[in-house]
Amino acid sequence: MSDDRPRPERSRQERVREWLAAEGCDAAVIVDLESLRDRSLRYLSGHFGDALLFLLGRETLLVPWDLPLAQRLACVDRLTAFERYERSVLVAVTEVLSEQRVRRVELSGKLPFPLVDRLKAALPQTEILCREDGVDALVSRLRERKDPAELARLRQACRITDELLRLVEEKVRDPHPPSEAQLALLLEAEARARGAEGMSFETLAAGPPRSFGIHCFPAVTGGPFASPGLSILDFGVSFEGYGSDVTTTVLRGPSSARQQEMRRAVEAAYALAVSRCRPGEATTEIAAAVNECFASRGFSMPHGLGHGIGLDSHEAPRFRLRPGEPSADSPRLAPGMVFTIEPGLYDPQEGGIRLENDLLVTETGCELLTRSRLIDL
Amino acid sequence: MSDDRPRPERSRQERVREWLAAEGCDAAVIVDLESLRDRSLRYLSGHFGDALLFLLGRETLLVPWDLPLAQRLACVDRLTAFERYERSVLVAVTEVLSEQRVRRVELSGKLPFPLVDRLKAALPQTEILCREDGVDALVSRLRERKDPAELARLRQACRITDELLRLVEEKVRDPHPPSEAQLALLLEAEARARGAEGMSFETLAAGPPRSFGIHCFPAVTGGPFASPGLSILDFGVSFEGYGSDVTTTVLRGPSSARQQEMRRAVEAAYALAVSRCRPGEATTEIAAAVNECFASRGFSMPHGLGHGIGLDSHEAPRFRLRPGEPSADSPRLAPGMVFTIEPGLYDPQEGGIRLENDLLVTETGCELLTRSRLIDL
Repeated sequence: MSDDRPRPERSRQERVREWLAAEGCDAAVIVDLESLRDRSLRYLSGHFGDALLFLLGRETLLVPWDLPLAQRLACVDRLTAFERYERSVLVAVTEVLSEQRVRRVELSGKLPFPLVDRLKAALPQTEILCREDGVDALVSRLRERKDPAELARLRQACRITDELLRLVEEKVRDPHPPSEAQLALLLEAEARARGAEGMSFETLAAGPPRSFGIHCFPAVTGGPFASPGLSILDFGVSFEGYGSDVTTTVLRGPSSARQQEMRRAVEAAYALAVSRCRPGEATTEIAAAVNECFASRGFSMPHGLGHGIGLDSHEAPRFRLRPGEPSADSPRLAPGMVFTIEPGLYDPQEGGIRLENDLLVTETGCELLTRSRLIDL
Repeated sequence: MSDDRPRPERSRQERVREWLAAEGCDAAVIVDLESLRDRSLRYLSGHFGDALLFLLGRETLLVPWDLPLAQRLACVDRLTAFERYERSVLVAVTEVLSEQRVRRVELSGKLPFPLVDRLKAALPQTEILCREDGVDALVSRLRERKDPAELARLRQACRITDELLRLVEEKVRDPHPPSEAQLALLLEAEARARGAEGMSFETLAAGPPRSFGIHCFPAVTGGPFASPGLSILDFGVSFEGYGSDVTTTVLRGPSSARQQEMRRAVEAAYALAVSRCRPGEATTEIAAAVNECFASRGFSMPHGLGHGIGLDSHEAPRFRLRPGEPSADSPRLAPGMVFTIEPGLYDPQEGGIRLENDLLVTETGCELLTRSRLIDL
């Protein structure tokens, strides 16, 4: 990160502080640990890696595991090494909140039950809130609409992704196409060569024997990709922390009648979904329209229609038919949101077809950030 | 996984059931989700990926996100699709525990506070336990000592790792050694070519300008590796879910007096630690001895001495000086434990040196599973 670039973390911290004031809270605590990854800590502080973030009334305090790294990355008022608190979240939160005489605190709702239970016992003078619709939901809503610095990174990730998609089209047309694993390695090498940090998640390459699964396991094998039948490739690249996410399907003929029906259904669902993406539209309604489109053709999609992308490979907004557990997902599209649209169908005999691209909601509609398409061979 | 191999998951489930009976509980619930990874679910069920595992009095029930995958991987009595519960952990746990008339349940202590709070409200007839020293601690203790099937996988991961270490020694001696990123890609390609699933964590390659950090960020760059100074390479490979973890440091001369002191200290600490690894030894005492060894030379190590490896890249036993938060870590070494020993020193001016290998505790001492060493150029 170049030092002369303006840092957006300060204004993000201010937004949280305004919300805390409205909630009558003195402080919020966000925790990012290996066992409990929370990229909101990076969003708010600029620091990457294990740390605790305290948004206090007058200052922002970061307690990192790796102090020298935090000194280079973090945009906060004060740093204290985690070591000082015996590398214990319980000790650090108890000591900081006591020292600061915090009366009412909002803890991240991701913290485990036993820890919060112990904090309540250790801090009898402090009112401890730990809610599903608390500070995590607020930060999730902030993260949903990307600011210019975030958009620049996502656009760069998507540009590299499009170059890789063109490379994939070339490679699968080769008389000796690469195996699943070779293709994944090639993508990683080419992504890095183009300035990406690496892949934004483990590349999933499923040749015809394995493409029936939504997410194949293991992610890649030494087996063939783009051999006769349906092959799914799902990948993304990360640029300064922000990741793209696309899927293409290679259809090597001759295809069965059922495969042709699946293909037409996926393309129709994709076109329908993209046509509905504009400010004000409800994600659940778009997802419902797609499900009706599939149902009218006798199909059912076994996963969500799409999800936000950014620091996490899955974030708000989510395109679900049912809300499921209470969550912070905002149901209506708004300018600045960046997400995937990824209809797919899977059949144990025929294999799977999925088409996925990344979209940005603009003031009047949406912009396609990537150009993945189905590949016929 | 070949189908004729005996499945160890049944006996693991029985161990949990025996413990539950002793605790007066009817059931235990383990959850593995994208936002809350818990490899204990794979250890107990054989299934990999988002799912809920219910260890009930008379049966083991798995509720997976991906049912077809679970049908192939899981070793349980019954499968029910997560879809049936609206893909909601709250709904699934409430419905299953109600149906089964569970009176006293042990929930994983990793579950977030708000979820457990809501479950308590939704299940007033059920006594809900959610403890740091509950079922997670039990499974952590079981996982600490590897069974023959696990050892076979770890040995294979370590064998491949040793081959890669020899390759690294060759490559860094090349007149044009690979960049950090090229080296990471080479390792991944060569690991897969040797039958590994991939790397067990993101390879960290830090050339001299970046080796001062314990864990460099980003993990790799296009910058030089093995140029004059100290370069750290930390990597591992995954074989059928089980991962190795080694570190080597390349020292390209001429080295400073301080670098030579650091090097001698790391080697002394490493030799001391390995010499102490045998059944009955306390991990905290070994870590304390190493810290004293460093202190006597005027150094201080900013991280733990080592950690268990297996399904997770960091698991029990942990070699910490201070226990920190209450945890399930068993403090004394026992046969079947597999872990890293990884002393390291870091200096903002001089760079860093770390040496890390994987060890197995035997009946009488320990066996080195990998042969990483410092590389002088």
